[in-house]
Amino acid sequence: MELNSIEDIRHALREFADARDWEQFHTIKNLLLALNGEVGELSEVFQWLSDGELEELSVENRIRAQHELADVLLYLVRISDKLDIDLIQAAKEKLEMNALKYPVAESKGNATKYNRR
Amino acid sequence: MELNSIEDIRHALREFADARDWEQFHTIKNLLLALNGEVGELSEVFQWLSDGELEELSVENRIRAQHELADVLLYLVRISDKLDIDLIQAAKEKLEMNALKYPVAESKGNATKYNRR
Amino acid sequence: MELNSIEDIRHALREFADARDWEQFHTIKNLLLALNGEVGELSEVFQWLSDGELEELSVENRIRAQHELADVLLYLVRISDKLDIDLIQAAKEKLEMNALKYPVAESKGNATKYNRR
Amino acid sequence: MELNSIEDIRHALREFADARDWEQFHTIKNLLLALNGEVGELSEVFQWLSDGELEELSVENRIRAQHELADVLLYLVRISDKLDIDLIQAAKEKLEMNALKYPVAESKGNATKYNRR
Repeated sequence: MELNSIEDIRHALREFADARDWEQFHTIKNLLLALNGEVGELSEVFQWLSDGELEELSVENRIRAQHELADVLLYLVRISDKLDIDLIQAAKEKLEMNALKYPVAESKGNATKYNRR
Repeated sequence: MELNSIEDIRHALREFADARDWEQFHTIKNLLLALNGEVGELSEVFQWLSDGELEELSVENRIRAQHELADVLLYLVRISDKLDIDLIQAAKEKLEMNALKYPVAESKGNATKYNRR
Repeated sequence: MELNSIEDIRHALREFADARDWEQFHTIKNLLLALNGEVGELSEVFQWLSDGELEELSVENRIRAQHELADVLLYLVRISDKLDIDLIQAAKEKLEMNALKYPVAESKGNATKYNRR
Repeated sequence: MELNSIEDIRHALREFADARDWEQFHTIKNLLLALNGEVGELSEVFQWLSDGELEELSVENRIRAQHELADVLLYLVRISDKLDIDLIQAAKEKLEMNALKYPVAESKGNATKYNRR
């Protein structure tokens, strides 16, 4: 499989669902529940780790994290595709909005303001 | 801003945090809580929508969805960067695993099996 | 175990953690990640179910749902206890706020307004 | 409003939804998305707080936490009611299962095992 971009993943996921006749299960709400499930699984990898264990992640936890991060991305791309939203373009616009919202001078090391958004 | 890939976003986010001295807030656990928050906000866009409203999303809901999808991606890329995990490569491996786990012949239209994974 | 209320569960959880010397793991952020994990698991029970399967939940799914609902409650009570917040009192106040926010006459069958809160 | 238990909240929520003709919106999947949304909002209260800020929560953050904890409980009770599951009984059973799963002697201060469940 040649996969180098969000766009490639979008196509691969579409073919994957089509081939298995799974489009019927991929409603927006179902996919959102699945996305929440995967973010929950990702959280569970880290929930009890100490600072030391976070600093030097075990091989087992690194692999689990890698798989869960992938799952989150896959559902995120699938949802965006179903909504016909360009994820990279959306991220670009959001980054530009954030640059305006958090000017460097006023936001420097400033957790309080950050927290208030 | 020239942003065309996950890789570009990864760099942009790193510079964004560096410029604002925000790396101190970007621990894995803090970022995971933020990711959960954004997936929650994305869920809230759709939670009470009827089938008809989902079919033809209002302009307002489409823009909200676009911003929340972007936020989820931004935190996902940031977390992957902090863990030094290549998100596209991880997704590629997961897609290959899924292809083995759900052979077309056995998975066709099969919600039950799908559900059991 | 005699457990009939949130208050009883609060005490039981405190004793459970104390006996195992687990208070060290029960920081607010760790417990929040665990809560997100459990809500994710609860979501996964239902994510691919059809309307018919939701209408008549299988015994297996009912038991899974019961366990996940319990897990969500247990972490919710634990977090409230750590924050010294009375969960029942908080719910009571929120219900009173909601009654003011959504007057019956204006909210009747009104998804749009509901959605806008 | 006289509200002293989960059972009272269950009744109050049912009346609240009935009076507003909101039962039509309260499908299991919609309520699960709403629950995920509220847990996300609860996470956002704490996501950037330092250890010191967690130790001595500001009045503003305490009130936000209280409201979000209440919202999580309200949706949790509503979902349990829709599924006809007794939340206190479910929690009781889960606590008994956990006591068997994590014997005091073997679980004492043991993050690794805890993590592995």
